[in-house]
Amino acid sequence: MDDFVSIEKPLVVLGCAYLSWKIIKHISSFLTLEKEPVTVLVTGAACSLNNFENWPHIWTGQIGYALVPMIARGAMLGPDQPVIVHLLDIEPAAEALNALKMELIDAAFPLLKGVVVTTDVVEACDGVEIAILVGGYRRKDGMERKDVMSKNVSIYKAQALALDQHAAPDCKVLVVANPANTNALILREFAPSIPEKNITCLTRLDHNRALAQISERLNVYVSDVKNVIIWGNHSSTQYPDANHAIVDTGIGEKPAIELVDDDNWLKTEFVETVQQRGAAIIKARKMSSALSAASSACDHIHDWVLGTPKGTWVSMGVSSDGSYGIPQGLVYSFPVTCDKGEWSIVQGLKIDEFSRAKMDENAKELMDEKSMAYSCLGD
Amino acid sequence: MDDFVSIEKPLVVLGCAYLSWKIIKHISSFLTLEKEPVTVLVTGAACSLNNFENWPHIWTGQIGYALVPMIARGAMLGPDQPVIVHLLDIEPAAEALNALKMELIDAAFPLLKGVVVTTDVVEACDGVEIAILVGGYRRKDGMERKDVMSKNVSIYKAQALALDQHAAPDCKVLVVANPANTNALILREFAPSIPEKNITCLTRLDHNRALAQISERLNVYVSDVKNVIIWGNHSSTQYPDANHAIVDTGIGEKPAIELVDDDNWLKTEFVETVQQRGAAIIKARKMSSALSAASSACDHIHDWVLGTPKGTWVSMGVSSDGSYGIPQGLVYSFPVTCDKGEWSIVQGLKIDEFSRAKMDENAKELMDEKSMAYSCLGD
Repeated sequence: MDDFVSIEKPLVVLGCAYLSWKIIKHISSFLTLEKEPVTVLVTGAACSLNNFENWPHIWTGQIGYALVPMIARGAMLGPDQPVIVHLLDIEPAAEALNALKMELIDAAFPLLKGVVVTTDVVEACDGVEIAILVGGYRRKDGMERKDVMSKNVSIYKAQALALDQHAAPDCKVLVVANPANTNALILREFAPSIPEKNITCLTRLDHNRALAQISERLNVYVSDVKNVIIWGNHSSTQYPDANHAIVDTGIGEKPAIELVDDDNWLKTEFVETVQQRGAAIIKARKMSSALSAASSACDHIHDWVLGTPKGTWVSMGVSSDGSYGIPQGLVYSFPVTCDKGEWSIVQGLKIDEFSRAKMDENAKELMDEKSMAYSCLGD
Repeated sequence: MDDFVSIEKPLVVLGCAYLSWKIIKHISSFLTLEKEPVTVLVTGAACSLNNFENWPHIWTGQIGYALVPMIARGAMLGPDQPVIVHLLDIEPAAEALNALKMELIDAAFPLLKGVVVTTDVVEACDGVEIAILVGGYRRKDGMERKDVMSKNVSIYKAQALALDQHAAPDCKVLVVANPANTNALILREFAPSIPEKNITCLTRLDHNRALAQISERLNVYVSDVKNVIIWGNHSSTQYPDANHAIVDTGIGEKPAIELVDDDNWLKTEFVETVQQRGAAIIKARKMSSALSAASSACDHIHDWVLGTPKGTWVSMGVSSDGSYGIPQGLVYSFPVTCDKGEWSIVQGLKIDEFSRAKMDENAKELMDEKSMAYSCLGD
């Protein structure tokens, strides 16, 4: 009995000391008004070159590897917002995931208050307030579109179920992996406890690319261009629209179409360059864009949570409410403004015939993708 | 003659319009107090997996690929400091370098006011105010140390000559590539127009790793630990020293050695873990650390330019002034504070016998490296 007590006592003392420490830390963080950490999930987080040959088509680890340090530095949620990151990847990437955790610890990010790496989707989703879903199955040469869809439907169904059960109730979700709109739609279907408005997909990369193309064309800084729009699908069918874009000339704002003064360029080369930019990067880099994709995912969440500047909108893939005649419920990219953590579709923009046709083409493609995804569910 | 005028006139009008635009932009940027951009050079900037097999030992592109977006987001020089980046890499990486430029444009970073990618060292160095030298020749299996040194000596001599002639007169230089201290020494030798105090090498990665190890051991946030020291060489001989480290306990600051209360751990496991951390990352990741190295390069320049917080020091490889008995002129890592863009070695720290031996061992290794480097110059 004495032996038992002599082991137990120091443990109790240690436990009490630890608890007091935690309570004091909590009170002190309250007194100095330090914010509580936000828990952010990134799937497909790891990157390991040596494994690259074995899983290039499964997991897009390079985006995650570029994204996580941006989150940990406060680029996504602000320089005074502590974060805890949950990083999920598949079993073959477990070691690379551990290496990523080691590097995140080594970087000594002051805002990073915890790192959980796991290959278990339930553990990954536990308590997350923001989920960035980068992981997905990528098409291999010679593969049927439906086979790829089927793989992604099962990945996103599983993640939806885990998020539905284990994420924070107001969790905000951003789907990055293609087919992004339809992956988001499947996710919404199987995560009914997450508000529909909280499930979005990435078209900010395309939006940023469109801003950049206008800025290059006019030889102005990209920070002087705003209010382009990406309509529709995060695919090469997407419609980049500069009809409402604005350029700060230094002596006032002007419509981009006036400054460009070349309707043909706006309807052809501009649209095609933005649509095909992903392919152009792959051609030059011999792999998909990573830093620009990560950066735009960061921008998407940043503006959603912290708001868009007055007079500025951004593009986000969101559930259609029927605006601009887009079938309700489709996950479709619209121009949105954000305030207090909520997005609203910009209303009342004049849509010309050319745009109308492009927007409808996107809606049709997304309806087809939706049917295919649902048929995969039935398989 | 008429024909000539009819071609020339529109050109003159365009030229005048362009000039007026530039003047107006300049005045307007002055009125809104926008800062002038700072030009930052990164060598070894590109990363291309497909080329990886062909040049794994030459260029450490992954660090550059992780670093450049941090610079472009303002993590290095502050959220209100516009930047222009110059990105240098070797000829086989030219396409990857172009891809990087495309991605930087696509990311639409508001602070990024220009991107120059080049394989020409003179163009790369032109007007740069901060140079981060990530590119270097890495040791291959079975290669003699002297052969590696010789390759790096010629790379750093060439870059020194270009910086000496073409960089801004008060250019700040950070050498990341190994052997970092000796590369910096060679650079200083061949860039006499750059003040000696402006040439430094990276040991902040090791410094951050040491902070992280103390934080893990004490189960406190890394932001609550400060004032570890990396003495000496950015090699596995380096001496991570926690004798003067401080931990914020929430109810006041305490020496880390008191809280750790295990002198043996501090002298053995702690030292070895930090020294061997690079190798541990390579083992887990199957390639060198990239994001943590990039992040610490960012921290190094950030604190150097914007200052260290009051009561906090960081580790930087700098030219020894003889402090702590380290031979004058060696590039050696010391604890430094920074203010108004200048570092100063922290003076008066008590050095025990154990530390003294480790510090001298580092000095000796660096003297040997220096001799070897100079003998390569003679070849």
